[in-house]
Amino acid sequence: MGDRKRLRYGMVGGGLGAFIGAVHRRAIALEETADLVAACFSSREEKNKETGEFYGIAQDRLYSSYEEMAKAESAREDGIDFVSIVTPNATHYEVAKTFLEAGIHVACEKPLCFTIEQGEELEQIAKEKHLMFAVTYTYTGYAMVKLAKELVAAGEIGNIVNVNAEYLQDWLIDEIGGGNQTTTKMSVWRTDPAKSGISNCVGDIGTHIEDTVAYITGMHPKKVAAVLDNYGMDLDLNANILVEYDNGVHGVYSCSQVCAGHLNGLVVRIFGSEGSIEWVQEEPDYLKVTKKGQPDQIYHRGTGYITGMAAERNHIPSGHPEGLTFAFANIYHGFMKDVLECVNGHCPEKNGDYPTVSDGVAGVKFIHAVVDSSKNASVWTEV
Amino acid sequence: MGDRKRLRYGMVGGGLGAFIGAVHRRAIALEETADLVAACFSSREEKNKETGEFYGIAQDRLYSSYEEMAKAESAREDGIDFVSIVTPNATHYEVAKTFLEAGIHVACEKPLCFTIEQGEELEQIAKEKHLMFAVTYTYTGYAMVKLAKELVAAGEIGNIVNVNAEYLQDWLIDEIGGGNQTTTKMSVWRTDPAKSGISNCVGDIGTHIEDTVAYITGMHPKKVAAVLDNYGMDLDLNANILVEYDNGVHGVYSCSQVCAGHLNGLVVRIFGSEGSIEWVQEEPDYLKVTKKGQPDQIYHRGTGYITGMAAERNHIPSGHPEGLTFAFANIYHGFMKDVLECVNGHCPEKNGDYPTVSDGVAGVKFIHAVVDSSKNASVWTEV
Amino acid sequence: MGDRKRLRYGMVGGGLGAFIGAVHRRAIALEETADLVAACFSSREEKNKETGEFYGIAQDRLYSSYEEMAKAESAREDGIDFVSIVTPNATHYEVAKTFLEAGIHVACEKPLCFTIEQGEELEQIAKEKHLMFAVTYTYTGYAMVKLAKELVAAGEIGNIVNVNAEYLQDWLIDEIGGGNQTTTKMSVWRTDPAKSGISNCVGDIGTHIEDTVAYITGMHPKKVAAVLDNYGMDLDLNANILVEYDNGVHGVYSCSQVCAGHLNGLVVRIFGSEGSIEWVQEEPDYLKVTKKGQPDQIYHRGTGYITGMAAERNHIPSGHPEGLTFAFANIYHGFMKDVLECVNGHCPEKNGDYPTVSDGVAGVKFIHAVVDSSKNASVWTEV
Amino acid sequence: MGDRKRLRYGMVGGGLGAFIGAVHRRAIALEETADLVAACFSSREEKNKETGEFYGIAQDRLYSSYEEMAKAESAREDGIDFVSIVTPNATHYEVAKTFLEAGIHVACEKPLCFTIEQGEELEQIAKEKHLMFAVTYTYTGYAMVKLAKELVAAGEIGNIVNVNAEYLQDWLIDEIGGGNQTTTKMSVWRTDPAKSGISNCVGDIGTHIEDTVAYITGMHPKKVAAVLDNYGMDLDLNANILVEYDNGVHGVYSCSQVCAGHLNGLVVRIFGSEGSIEWVQEEPDYLKVTKKGQPDQIYHRGTGYITGMAAERNHIPSGHPEGLTFAFANIYHGFMKDVLECVNGHCPEKNGDYPTVSDGVAGVKFIHAVVDSSKNASVWTEV
Repeated sequence: MGDRKRLRYGMVGGGLGAFIGAVHRRAIALEETADLVAACFSSREEKNKETGEFYGIAQDRLYSSYEEMAKAESAREDGIDFVSIVTPNATHYEVAKTFLEAGIHVACEKPLCFTIEQGEELEQIAKEKHLMFAVTYTYTGYAMVKLAKELVAAGEIGNIVNVNAEYLQDWLIDEIGGGNQTTTKMSVWRTDPAKSGISNCVGDIGTHIEDTVAYITGMHPKKVAAVLDNYGMDLDLNANILVEYDNGVHGVYSCSQVCAGHLNGLVVRIFGSEGSIEWVQEEPDYLKVTKKGQPDQIYHRGTGYITGMAAERNHIPSGHPEGLTFAFANIYHGFMKDVLECVNGHCPEKNGDYPTVSDGVAGVKFIHAVVDSSKNASVWTEV
Repeated sequence: MGDRKRLRYGMVGGGLGAFIGAVHRRAIALEETADLVAACFSSREEKNKETGEFYGIAQDRLYSSYEEMAKAESAREDGIDFVSIVTPNATHYEVAKTFLEAGIHVACEKPLCFTIEQGEELEQIAKEKHLMFAVTYTYTGYAMVKLAKELVAAGEIGNIVNVNAEYLQDWLIDEIGGGNQTTTKMSVWRTDPAKSGISNCVGDIGTHIEDTVAYITGMHPKKVAAVLDNYGMDLDLNANILVEYDNGVHGVYSCSQVCAGHLNGLVVRIFGSEGSIEWVQEEPDYLKVTKKGQPDQIYHRGTGYITGMAAERNHIPSGHPEGLTFAFANIYHGFMKDVLECVNGHCPEKNGDYPTVSDGVAGVKFIHAVVDSSKNASVWTEV
Repeated sequence: MGDRKRLRYGMVGGGLGAFIGAVHRRAIALEETADLVAACFSSREEKNKETGEFYGIAQDRLYSSYEEMAKAESAREDGIDFVSIVTPNATHYEVAKTFLEAGIHVACEKPLCFTIEQGEELEQIAKEKHLMFAVTYTYTGYAMVKLAKELVAAGEIGNIVNVNAEYLQDWLIDEIGGGNQTTTKMSVWRTDPAKSGISNCVGDIGTHIEDTVAYITGMHPKKVAAVLDNYGMDLDLNANILVEYDNGVHGVYSCSQVCAGHLNGLVVRIFGSEGSIEWVQEEPDYLKVTKKGQPDQIYHRGTGYITGMAAERNHIPSGHPEGLTFAFANIYHGFMKDVLECVNGHCPEKNGDYPTVSDGVAGVKFIHAVVDSSKNASVWTEV
Repeated sequence: MGDRKRLRYGMVGGGLGAFIGAVHRRAIALEETADLVAACFSSREEKNKETGEFYGIAQDRLYSSYEEMAKAESAREDGIDFVSIVTPNATHYEVAKTFLEAGIHVACEKPLCFTIEQGEELEQIAKEKHLMFAVTYTYTGYAMVKLAKELVAAGEIGNIVNVNAEYLQDWLIDEIGGGNQTTTKMSVWRTDPAKSGISNCVGDIGTHIEDTVAYITGMHPKKVAAVLDNYGMDLDLNANILVEYDNGVHGVYSCSQVCAGHLNGLVVRIFGSEGSIEWVQEEPDYLKVTKKGQPDQIYHRGTGYITGMAAERNHIPSGHPEGLTFAFANIYHGFMKDVLECVNGHCPEKNGDYPTVSDGVAGVKFIHAVVDSSKNASVWTEV
């Protein structure tokens, strides 16, 4: 019998109507190589059943608890190869740990967990059990972000001397001053420490800046000096962060959820001694590259002059926007490729091109350092 | 037993590696409401088998010819509800006719067919048999195109007085002067009259302009005055077209496959007595709306101020690009909703929001009028 | 005594408050090489006197008629070297002819005149008398338009295969349907045949498209097929024009004064076999250049990689917008350089880099052909 | 005898070929209300003479030293009304002081001077002598910056909650690592503490951010936490600055001269509880305004919906870029209006709309606080 070509996966969370669960399912569907066969979509029995029926999950593989699911699936010969965890943030740690301990590969929404200790524990278990563990930091999945990484690695912009990145949104602007009656359930959730941990804005989107910059440049914050703004809420809605990387270079990150007119404004600009690159998430199929003393160049995804990873992860012809879901699919592509190799008996020594549990831990450390600095008069704080 | 909630569909064409087949499958997958259960992916047995295995099609529902498939599926109690036709253009007519005659709903890639007679015949059969028939003119599926349509209908820009639309690409630039050794297979195919009919550029992309403008404005070309450029090839690579609509308003369409730097540059601008709208396919989540004497307004998909069809067909939060595949999914959404109603015994009297066989016929008529005008010294030619 | 370094000039028209007179004066002032010493600013004595005093014109050189001015100035030893004509369009011909016959160099606002015969007569007189004659088609004065011309001439985009240019404005949108009570004096003037000649929109702005494209490409329309829209007014407010150049290449021009949101939207796109260029007047310091199969390039005015005419006519550092007045100044620069050479006794055999009376004549011919074609069912009409 | 309508001015610095002198002369020329009648263009006799001849300065008013000029002009009945100081930065203080003491109004290039004490002394003298003193912070002269100020003042964006501004250039990128052989004279000058004071980048461009934000918002930095990068040079080439304003709101400023592809990238974004505004210097005729929960709005200079100061300082029709020189002219407009009132005997009690010596002092204080913070481990430092 030859190697398997398709994977079986399960989902925890993601009942009908839940946003992020649909993103994960659709991203996996775009890859066309894995089938959803088991789930615990919701702790509410009715919702769980309704969703299971809609997706045609066999009754004996629709579970009322994730513990039960992990146990039963790991016992089956045709059990799931990996689980997608799309539950509320506060539960990621417990759910992920349970599946890892059951010997099942894990893809988990970000943030990985709330404390550095939790993150390092998950990292350790995955390592010991040789399990793949993806944390779905979406934006590194975009083809043009991959191109950016390769251009930097190839020395196209020389030595990096400056980083300027931001992630601006406006969906919590009504929380300014302590919130109001139009507050949505989601915004309540985001700004509740019990559900979001020690940070709202930095934890939700600031960490994407950190991850995307680290992916492109290979540079990690060594220390940060930050000022957070809560505007009367319990958690931060806005943050400005000075960064010093491990190589001594400085940068600045800004993230906010109160900037009117900015919807999902992740913008990453890397400046080097020989040139610069700029990527704007809202127009993700372009990359602006300027070599010192030359005209700006606008690279377009899917064209003949683009090679390497950005070309490999190209799905539709140039000029036809791929959008977020393909970026997500690219992350699953790398993860599922690794899982498939494990399933077929030759687990990779080195992870493929996707964010892993280690990146998740780095994110948690970053959040903690930023919050600590802000509480301590913005002094430089080690990450 | 209640109404069915999911559909079964089959595919003709779309073997592994074929571009447009994957787009259709992925678009349907994004909708999460239909399952691929039967297919004739390729006339080449090996390719057909390989693709069928990859997608887990049961052996008895993987057919070696579309005629056989139509016959067998229409005979099954659990036969397919609709077929997606993603074969080469020259075969659309025959395949579509076969499935219609077998009583199966049809979704067909554009162009619908080569002659006006063929198109009208298909239209007639579908009508007589009360079958749904979608022609997948992609661009009307975009949320912001739907918003444009609603703004125009609501009189937001007053009476339309001018239309300026273009669709510029550059992928056939090397055909100028008669082609060269780097000519790709696809370009050979596009510029071969046997495979592309009487027109290449107008047939492939000019017709999208016509369809998108008609969708937004409800205005149809009454006559055209056109000049086509072949640059030494058998078929056109470039076209400029003066248009007079049924209401006497004039417009101009330009389409080209030799405009360096333009990848998939469909741009539609509608000018009215009270304002204007502009939509650019390469940045599809925006719509520029200018009311007379006021600042330009940039609408963003997915925001709270967007209502109606554009809000209903919103899939991911504002600021996260949806991309082409969701536009395609939106077309299937409308079509599949109609099909599901038919399946459940209450066929709609009026089609939902997607391009139908009638739009496909309009496209064929437009192509013929444009080609005729160009051959006849650009005189005004009735559509 | 050495050569003169400064010029003396006079102005006809341009009383205080008149827009275009100020543009000419300021453009000349930016050049810092000519002094305004004589004028007939207005036929209204009070206005003439007030303006003369403001600008410190000597009383004996402030004239009540242009005929008197031409006569007196040509008789003085220190008479003006050239005259700037900024009177209403209907008078350009008479005024220009008068000064030419008095042996004075002429810079005249566009359009040069109303009939082809008038234009050719002016051209003939200037030629016979070896007088310089600039027609201030503004847009060829922009540095990046000069760069475009040089890139085309250097073969950077190969052989030109397609031209797509437009000039869209919205300031006459309220004239649709026959005008209304808010009609401004200027719009009344523009749409009155007695004051604007046979065309409003094509004459006012369409002719700029023609001139700018001709400047960049060296290609002149051989014939045109046009449709004009008057929307109930006596003259055109909108035009779409198919063009065939002398080398057989086709293009399309659109001009309009009823396109909401477009203020002064001159956009020129030239497509060649090896690449393309695009220039947008509202952001004039950039030039988009795309070589076939390469990323788009955005050239910025004033940078080190820009050489030739665009570098010579650079006034302020890159990144600091120069604006329209410098474009105008560049036109005067070329003209005044020629005039200064004449004054110093060595008139140039070939005109410098600015639009001359011959370009003015070409513009008048273009307008006539476009209007004729539109009146004659859009048939192709020789220019 | 009535009031005077024109002013007489003198210039110190600005010999032929000097960049900033030409900007000042041209800006004044655009205003058309003042005449250059006296100067000390250069300390080099030949250069001074040549420039004086070119501009037709009377021989007895072309001075070999600014001290002599101040003395002689203040003694003349027809002496200059104001002086424009366009000398190297290190001399501003001495020259300005000399003319103030001679009772002559002053317009001075920024930075005003090097030390806070110098600045406050100049401020004091001007105040005592009732002399007008403009410091030409260019960017507040732009019409759309004036509109921004008025929209903020009118409460259109609610209470300001966040500021994000940057000024990125790339012209000193070759200084990274200590400079190299292609170093230009200007860059040597900029990075020499003797000629530039304690800061290069913050002093040259960071101070423009501070001034422009203060102009728009009325908010002044109370303290700053900054990190400067010298990259091996004596002075800073890059800076990231956390800001706390007097009202407790936070912001972030970034300035750099090593960001490839950024030419003169001043971008100011002000975020309020009800909306936001964004202004980009390289496209200065636009202002992006987003009200909470509404589409973005793009305001265009010169349109009918723009009123107030932005409309008053409009020079050419909408859609025709005005550029930097008009912004500069607007500053001189306000200053010269005040000077003219003084000249006519009714000095204004409150300065008009232009940056004064007080703004110059604020700039010097800002620079000092930023440099101090950076030297002191980025701790928050009072301005």
